[in-house]
Amino acid sequence: MPASGEPDGLRVVLVDVRNPLNIGAVARAMSNFGFLHLRLVNPYQVAFRDARSAVGAAATLAAAEVYKTLAEAVADCSLVVGTTAVGHRDLQHSLIPLEAGAPQVRAHLAVGRCALLFGSEKFGLSNPDLSHCHWLMHIPTRDEHSSMNLGQAVAVCLYELVRDSGAVAELRKGTPASSADVERITDTLLVALRASEYPKLNTSKSFQAAVRRVLRRLRLQQGDAEFLLGMLRQMVWKMKKNEETKS
Amino acid sequence: MPASGEPDGLRVVLVDVRNPLNIGAVARAMSNFGFLHLRLVNPYQVAFRDARSAVGAAATLAAAEVYKTLAEAVADCSLVVGTTAVGHRDLQHSLIPLEAGAPQVRAHLAVGRCALLFGSEKFGLSNPDLSHCHWLMHIPTRDEHSSMNLGQAVAVCLYELVRDSGAVAELRKGTPASSADVERITDTLLVALRASEYPKLNTSKSFQAAVRRVLRRLRLQQGDAEFLLGMLRQMVWKMKKNEETKS
Repeated sequence: MPASGEPDGLRVVLVDVRNPLNIGAVARAMSNFGFLHLRLVNPYQVAFRDARSAVGAAATLAAAEVYKTLAEAVADCSLVVGTTAVGHRDLQHSLIPLEAGAPQVRAHLAVGRCALLFGSEKFGLSNPDLSHCHWLMHIPTRDEHSSMNLGQAVAVCLYELVRDSGAVAELRKGTPASSADVERITDTLLVALRASEYPKLNTSKSFQAAVRRVLRRLRLQQGDAEFLLGMLRQMVWKMKKNEETKS
Repeated sequence: MPASGEPDGLRVVLVDVRNPLNIGAVARAMSNFGFLHLRLVNPYQVAFRDARSAVGAAATLAAAEVYKTLAEAVADCSLVVGTTAVGHRDLQHSLIPLEAGAPQVRAHLAVGRCALLFGSEKFGLSNPDLSHCHWLMHIPTRDEHSSMNLGQAVAVCLYELVRDSGAVAELRKGTPASSADVERITDTLLVALRASEYPKLNTSKSFQAAVRRVLRRLRLQQGDAEFLLGMLRQMVWKMKKNEETKS
């Protein structure tokens, strides 16, 4: 897993959440991303630990702590961050996008605990809830449909917390084919085209150059080049054999 | 919404997905992030359009296209990217982390359509499904619990596609308090402490300096500074008034 501050210092706090399926989904996302401390304030159903959508999240659910008030649930945290869909309330807090807030949370986790608050499915965090927060974070959803599913919102926030900004794409496996390999394929393809009586081969002067360019744009891997070369050679063999048989 | 290539060119393709609730959740996340083209290959239930968890995603669900084969569903796309939990299969494809893959998808969307494939809840994408892909992407979950809920996986992938790497935190609203404001508060706090007969005021020489440092660490905003100053002045007034009454 990429560096993510100290995931052990994060408390995901669900306030007044009603649906046990959502609690299960939250626990699953937490387990996926390595944040294992769930706190519930005033959950509507005590049966939440049985949430059946919680594939692989049983341990996180079993260890969840239940509190009567939000004040108690965040008492041991030195940073309290609320999450909110923008626009539905006249916010008095600083509201910053997730991409910018997550580094602040990570930085804090290196020195102390942080509570990340999510409100009820219908109403989000209330104004009294928000009064416990140092600042608020929002996921950059579009204005026309800003309200996210709770489990999805938690997943996106936690993903951003573990996100590895240094990840690099290695789109190609293995060793790139050498120029000699590509040259061999080029030659064999031209032989094959000739054997197939491909029409343009003799009419267009630039055709060979075009074939060369196409093959080089493929950025073939070594193994793939050998594989293709074998196929081409087989086709050449077959076409020539048919010619011999005919004549 | 932040720049995100051409969201209109993305096709989210669900292959063999069984649970209509998951299809609804996918549609909701798509609508949240502005990707409105959903394709379903061989969905198990024709009733998927009624998926009840699809808050606000009715339009996306209603416009979803259904295909019998994956080949048909990706026929008009020039990039096909599969998603997978790592490790459960001996992969023959390039497998790159989401953080590194998303920029490639965004770059492609500027010039052509891209299909983003998600497999069934239980088995993910099959090997025949993967054979349609140019490369594969995975979300950086932890090894001990890598399998994500479908709706959450889609939400995280789409979030990464619209993610604004240039987002900056503006944690403080309004104008920072001037030094003069902070000085006034410092003076008034010291007056208040004196009026309250705060013990350390006379015994510790460094106490005043400590008070000055504390107030400056608060990085007060202008309005907040005035607000606090008013409260302090009121307390000073009250304490002095009580003294006068006593004497």
